[in-house]
Amino acid sequence: MAQSQQARPLEGITILDLSRVLAGPYCTMILAQLGARVIKVEMPGTGDDSRAFGPFVNGKSLYFSCLNYDKESIALNLKHPDDRATLEELLGIADVVIENFRPGTMEKLGYGWETLHERLPNLIYGAASGFGDTGPYSRRAAYDMVVQGMGGIMSMTGQPKAPPTRVGVSIGDLGAGLYLTIGVLGALYKRKAGGGAVKVDVAMLDCQVALLEDALAAYLSTGEIAQPQGSRHPEIAPFQVYTTADSYLVIAAGNDHLFSLMATAMARPDLLENPKYKTNGLRHANVDQLETDMEVTLKQKTTGQWLEILNAAGVPCGPVNDIAAVTKDPQVAARNMIVSIADPKIGKLQVAGNPIKLSGVPERTGHAAPPEIDADREAILDLICEKV
Amino acid sequence: MAQSQQARPLEGITILDLSRVLAGPYCTMILAQLGARVIKVEMPGTGDDSRAFGPFVNGKSLYFSCLNYDKESIALNLKHPDDRATLEELLGIADVVIENFRPGTMEKLGYGWETLHERLPNLIYGAASGFGDTGPYSRRAAYDMVVQGMGGIMSMTGQPKAPPTRVGVSIGDLGAGLYLTIGVLGALYKRKAGGGAVKVDVAMLDCQVALLEDALAAYLSTGEIAQPQGSRHPEIAPFQVYTTADSYLVIAAGNDHLFSLMATAMARPDLLENPKYKTNGLRHANVDQLETDMEVTLKQKTTGQWLEILNAAGVPCGPVNDIAAVTKDPQVAARNMIVSIADPKIGKLQVAGNPIKLSGVPERTGHAAPPEIDADREAILDLICEKV
Repeated sequence: MAQSQQARPLEGITILDLSRVLAGPYCTMILAQLGARVIKVEMPGTGDDSRAFGPFVNGKSLYFSCLNYDKESIALNLKHPDDRATLEELLGIADVVIENFRPGTMEKLGYGWETLHERLPNLIYGAASGFGDTGPYSRRAAYDMVVQGMGGIMSMTGQPKAPPTRVGVSIGDLGAGLYLTIGVLGALYKRKAGGGAVKVDVAMLDCQVALLEDALAAYLSTGEIAQPQGSRHPEIAPFQVYTTADSYLVIAAGNDHLFSLMATAMARPDLLENPKYKTNGLRHANVDQLETDMEVTLKQKTTGQWLEILNAAGVPCGPVNDIAAVTKDPQVAARNMIVSIADPKIGKLQVAGNPIKLSGVPERTGHAAPPEIDADREAILDLICEKV
Repeated sequence: MAQSQQARPLEGITILDLSRVLAGPYCTMILAQLGARVIKVEMPGTGDDSRAFGPFVNGKSLYFSCLNYDKESIALNLKHPDDRATLEELLGIADVVIENFRPGTMEKLGYGWETLHERLPNLIYGAASGFGDTGPYSRRAAYDMVVQGMGGIMSMTGQPKAPPTRVGVSIGDLGAGLYLTIGVLGALYKRKAGGGAVKVDVAMLDCQVALLEDALAAYLSTGEIAQPQGSRHPEIAPFQVYTTADSYLVIAAGNDHLFSLMATAMARPDLLENPKYKTNGLRHANVDQLETDMEVTLKQKTTGQWLEILNAAGVPCGPVNDIAAVTKDPQVAARNMIVSIADPKIGKLQVAGNPIKLSGVPERTGHAAPPEIDADREAILDLICEKV
């Protein structure tokens, strides 16, 4: 039956989600936003490890909650025969199984890709792990911090000559979750095109390498090793955070025209006449002096005042928002990027919304609260009966 | 015709790519890795702005090159009647058009979504912009730095009480590129399922909000504003970078069991007996003292020595690799995450590989060099004749 024009892309797709904590659940959250039904299989008693991660409201983890709304939960012990039988029935009705165990774990449980693919040739298998199914580190455990360090991003983040600095979010996990989502969608398309089901093998370390922008190619061709630059861009100036009378301000005047608009808006024609600032190359070569020169003026007004002046002049700029300010931003609200969910324990749970806006496809409203462990057992078991 | 099992998922799909610099080209690079044919439409003369971004080898930009290999180029002036006619023919044979202009630009050119959708009802439209098609900032220009500042990630990255720190790669653009890829793949699946073609509208700012992990939910429920933590995890200890005899070391001992393995491997049973370190909660509360205590021992050996000792004991750990070290890592090599391309100007161009590994689908070898402007005009025009 053809999908309706208003249907979200993955309506009718069932995801069996054995993953926990972050990379896997982030992927299945996006798949749920795209319309899939996500059935979370959790260990009886404790469930997803992230249920134990703070902060908590009335005993319920906000960390778990922001990743697992709009999903259903069933508790199954993958070593117990009855529960294994249920799992196998669920595998039989699923389109995709997702897991982020260490490579080898699913094989030990008897659910490795080879076994499953032989038994269920249409089942797509999506896996995220620290290092992937192959290579010398394959069986090692990894955490976000480990791959942020190994993958090079930490060596490029931070103030110059300061200690190594972590990206403030778990980009090791989130990067893998995004790439796993891309791989699973590619696999779903391939299956729909008649190409059969595949296993998608995504490694956190590989994804870090894929996020290095030009740093790899630059080093391998020129020998230059990328260094942390604080808030500065490695090639462009002015393109960084500046200090104002009350806080900070990003100015990104990436070419001569924008630099000229900026200098005019700041009532600083001398910046345009200074031979040291004639071209982007010269501005970048004299970036310290340019910062000092600009801040003489920028420190005379507040960030709010400068935003008004520079935005009116068409100069790309913005505040350095803390999380409280992000939640109050009118653009964030207009784009529906914070959604409210009524949760029986938390009350009003507010989480990030779906950044993928599709024309003619209404955004989901009335989200399901993040499930308690095993909360949806009956509905899930009914699904088996319906589908078989 | 059914796709073969070895085919990459998007074989047979044609992407018309009007995008430039980073978010759009990063998306189409991934789509090319998944098997799509990507036709890059560039401004005659100057081409993609990033062709002017250093570093250069023999006049060719490495920045441009690492994002645009395995793509074809045709130069078209979208304001010139003959070139517009060619573009319209290309739109007629494409499955997807991708652009990352400021919202409104495509409408001014006469190629807005409404117009195109009416004329070509099967054409999928993928757009990435700073703020998206809607909301009060929609028409504003944005650059990576601006959305990193506005979206909150900068407020969580850096050393405590230090100036705001940029994530060392352009996560504002890369995040949007990944989400745009997900949206386009969702749209391709939807079209294949009979749901018609849609426009995918992805905003850089929205994607930053979607990458904040639990920070939004935590603030909105508890009032706690996430702060930069240097290299530390906000909830877990030991889980950070430590100083060794010669450099740095990440240790991620996220639970009591791993902490015990670590203390034993370090020959520091006193750490296990110290009541201040009994639980993760206590270790986190005493994280400064724990760091000092651990570094007394860690500073007695090199990072290399500690990696051997801790890996043998099963403690998650890793080096803080600079880009040079990343390129020499045996796991990176084993996963084929650096690929070599013979480029007529650069010689041996080396770029990041494809992190999406699909069982039974051979990885592409023999990549096409990043094109010169208009290099593939004839082959592209032939394609029109074949398909019409």
